[in-house]
Amino acid sequence: MPSERLVFVTGNAGKLNEVREILAQGEAIDIESRDLDLPEIQGTTQEIALEKCRRAAEVIGGPVITEDTALCFEAMNGLPGPYIKFFLRELGHEGLNHMLDGFPTRAAWALCTFAYSAGPGTEPVLFEGRTDGRIVPARGPPKFGWDPVFEAEDTGLTKMRFSHRGRALQKLRAYLQAQGEGGRGA
Amino acid sequence: MPSERLVFVTGNAGKLNEVREILAQGEAIDIESRDLDLPEIQGTTQEIALEKCRRAAEVIGGPVITEDTALCFEAMNGLPGPYIKFFLRELGHEGLNHMLDGFPTRAAWALCTFAYSAGPGTEPVLFEGRTDGRIVPARGPPKFGWDPVFEAEDTGLTKMRFSHRGRALQKLRAYLQAQGEGGRGA
Repeated sequence: MPSERLVFVTGNAGKLNEVREILAQGEAIDIESRDLDLPEIQGTTQEIALEKCRRAAEVIGGPVITEDTALCFEAMNGLPGPYIKFFLRELGHEGLNHMLDGFPTRAAWALCTFAYSAGPGTEPVLFEGRTDGRIVPARGPPKFGWDPVFEAEDTGLTKMRFSHRGRALQKLRAYLQAQGEGGRGA
Repeated sequence: MPSERLVFVTGNAGKLNEVREILAQGEAIDIESRDLDLPEIQGTTQEIALEKCRRAAEVIGGPVITEDTALCFEAMNGLPGPYIKFFLRELGHEGLNHMLDGFPTRAAWALCTFAYSAGPGTEPVLFEGRTDGRIVPARGPPKFGWDPVFEAEDTGLTKMRFSHRGRALQKLRAYLQAQGEGGRGA
């Protein structure tokens, strides 16, 4: 385990609790949160996550976790992807559906990327979790960003917001445990 | 006129010539070009242009001009906007048309933003030029990025790539001339 306290960059108490629960399973990993407004670059989901985590480590001055979520349309080769927040804000749920009216498929995937850096100057490591599904007219309560228009394929439900995040977090957990066993906690 | 040599950030010789021609009208403004790979942030066209010009001024260490072009769909409240390059790359001309199949309007505008900074630490000034038009099936030679699918409204032509750039450049020229008359060239 890291000797310095690990910081998860989020302003969301629910997300902090979720990360704490999953990462701490079986081990006492001490995690606190900081709400930072970090500029995000344009690029692939990987480039964006790496740069954000690098900047976060510099600002925090210690080990840090950042998180990004993208919603990728198959018909658009993965776009809007990391830019989904802008499209959701400008077009709403109905508009996101209309974007696909001219294409033969409404298949989509939700991609969650956790990034971990051991500290400033240390290249971040990425952990991705993906849920496949499709874009559907909005269902359920009008909240959770684009959740109401994304139907996960294995369930037919639009409430799968945590499955891709959970998958990414399990990978991060395995990594941190392996680091701990390798003696990083000394 | 600036006493230091003004640098226009571009790797495109044609763009350099165009900028030289328009900015130098009636005055001897000395401009050179540098091809820099600057990271671009996510945000509004203004935020993106300001940050890129700030970074360019830091890297160059003197007065600098940067340029950004966006293609904005009215049905999407201005998106894809600054992200058009990713959508063009992944969807091609046909896909850009299909994105609008589900919406009632194909109206669009091309937006060119020049940014000028007098040097590191000096807040950049923005100069915007806009051409209104609409998205159409591709015409003409398959080049110039999204030019073949953008029809300028006053002409019915899809070759108007320079009109919004020209408008922005004229504003920049007037600004630089006013600065020169104010004695900055001393």
